[in-house]
Amino acid sequence: MRIFPVILSGGSGTRLWPMSTPDHPKQFLPLTSEDTMFQQTLARVGDPRRFAAPLIVANARHQALIEAQLGGRDATLLLEPAARNTAPAIALAALAAPHALLLVMPSDHVITNPAAFQNAIDAAVPHADAGWLVTFGISPDAPETGYGYIQLGDALAAGVHQVARFVEKPDAARAAEMLATGDHVWNGGIFLFRADAYLAALADHAPEILAAVTKAMNTATRTGAVVHPEAAAFAASPSDSIDYAVLEKAARVAVVPVSMGWSDVGSWDALAALAVPNEDGNALTGNVVTVDTHNCLIKSDGLRIATIGLEGLTIIAAGNDILIMPKGCAQDVKKVIEKL
Amino acid sequence: MRIFPVILSGGSGTRLWPMSTPDHPKQFLPLTSEDTMFQQTLARVGDPRRFAAPLIVANARHQALIEAQLGGRDATLLLEPAARNTAPAIALAALAAPHALLLVMPSDHVITNPAAFQNAIDAAVPHADAGWLVTFGISPDAPETGYGYIQLGDALAAGVHQVARFVEKPDAARAAEMLATGDHVWNGGIFLFRADAYLAALADHAPEILAAVTKAMNTATRTGAVVHPEAAAFAASPSDSIDYAVLEKAARVAVVPVSMGWSDVGSWDALAALAVPNEDGNALTGNVVTVDTHNCLIKSDGLRIATIGLEGLTIIAAGNDILIMPKGCAQDVKKVIEKL
Repeated sequence: MRIFPVILSGGSGTRLWPMSTPDHPKQFLPLTSEDTMFQQTLARVGDPRRFAAPLIVANARHQALIEAQLGGRDATLLLEPAARNTAPAIALAALAAPHALLLVMPSDHVITNPAAFQNAIDAAVPHADAGWLVTFGISPDAPETGYGYIQLGDALAAGVHQVARFVEKPDAARAAEMLATGDHVWNGGIFLFRADAYLAALADHAPEILAAVTKAMNTATRTGAVVHPEAAAFAASPSDSIDYAVLEKAARVAVVPVSMGWSDVGSWDALAALAVPNEDGNALTGNVVTVDTHNCLIKSDGLRIATIGLEGLTIIAAGNDILIMPKGCAQDVKKVIEKL
Repeated sequence: MRIFPVILSGGSGTRLWPMSTPDHPKQFLPLTSEDTMFQQTLARVGDPRRFAAPLIVANARHQALIEAQLGGRDATLLLEPAARNTAPAIALAALAAPHALLLVMPSDHVITNPAAFQNAIDAAVPHADAGWLVTFGISPDAPETGYGYIQLGDALAAGVHQVARFVEKPDAARAAEMLATGDHVWNGGIFLFRADAYLAALADHAPEILAAVTKAMNTATRTGAVVHPEAAAFAASPSDSIDYAVLEKAARVAVVPVSMGWSDVGSWDALAALAVPNEDGNALTGNVVTVDTHNCLIKSDGLRIATIGLEGLTIIAAGNDILIMPKGCAQDVKKVIEKL
């Protein structure tokens, strides 16, 4: 049976301001290659022998962006009338394809080793077919505090484990401990399961979400491949993540650890880590002139940027805005957003 | 007798790129106050009891800027058809007002203590009336290598000295020596002399300049208060500074040392030194948002600049250009200009 990709495009993308904005969040920007991360996500599930046309769950304001970046490719658009986090978003897709095997993926991640991802999917499929809710756990290479962790439990098969427990974003000490154990992986927000298994788990653990989203889909309007769930019903759903609402409570949850060059590109520092530097250590995009400048990430969508004697800065120009900060400060972009 | 101010507006202003450009050099920008340096220069000689309407020697391409910034004030414009340095430029003014006492000033300097300047003029007038070519020497407060120096000779009167010698821009060691002697001042390019005394000195020491400029003025066209010296004749003049062509050779050259808060605003570092910082040590102009940022000079004429965690940078946005460098690197702006 072919897998139905479910691409979640719900992020508001403020952490990559000023390039990423609520009207044009990061998944629709060509930040890591000539293709956008949304297009890279599509390409990852582009083999028609293996994957059906994707279901895209997105903010209604991004419809035009999505249709432009689909470039004529078949897809079903499920346009959220309001943001209610991942549990209701995935429920929309499950109700749209209730007999399918769903591969749920964020639209704004980078995977540099797609073959490893496909192998992990292969390992997961039998368990998802058998009714397990399968997560993909990213093998950690640093004590990151920005991700949730999953502790591996007993093995179900080669490379597939029961989930022992989910761990919320840790502090630095706890992250270092988990990295040292070797049996914790990052929760990357990628899942494989049968739609009916997910809906059954929702019925058990988050019945209000299931009821609201079911009502919204039963009264949805559809134009071609674009589905508009009914707004008031959808808005009545509790807002919750699939992790909290379902996975931490469900009985049969599995995890497939995978090392696939994954990044959530969650900050300019994360993007800098992905960039390929020139001989000066700089990663430059757009109209940039450097003198005695090293180890900088500089991107411009139009302005001409000239630098002299800089070391280790991130400089991002977009539209009428320019952001300047040392690498390592990217988490403070939110402080700028608050001030604006 | 009233003094005729001669305002020289010949600089191309590349050292304050990107705000200053050949079409809009620094004297026409409000960099140090709400008034431009050109307007500040006009105001310095604005007392009609003491000063006649100014003679402005300028690049013809700046006529509209000058007329706008004059704001209806009387002035004679002497529009240079080509740049030939200060000796020919001042000769234009001397030939336009051959019986006047001329106070020659660059249009792009800052003087924060204008009363001290007026007192220095008072001290200089009797000697200029007597036929001396009088320079104003800026009392040095640092071993600057970017200026020429003048060594004080015998006193002619209180606060007025013969010039012992002119010294070209020194290296750092020589600058420190001169600062230590206490009898050297900076050559600020400000002069007071009778027009006929200057023309006589030109005849003695730079007759080709005098001949060319005389021919250009004899065949000039005049429209109202705007004089266009004849282009071919003026272009035939040697290009030389008043210092080299006349002052270093003439017999009766005097210097009036003065401490008047002078700056030639010759670089972004010089401008940073003039700026009044806020409580974070930052001098901010325009649409700027700072987080954890200290001791920076940030100016924008339109773009919104956001900074996080920066220390001691100069950031200048003008039009479609932005320049970013540490304070202390301003002399390297020319390297950027070469690359563009």
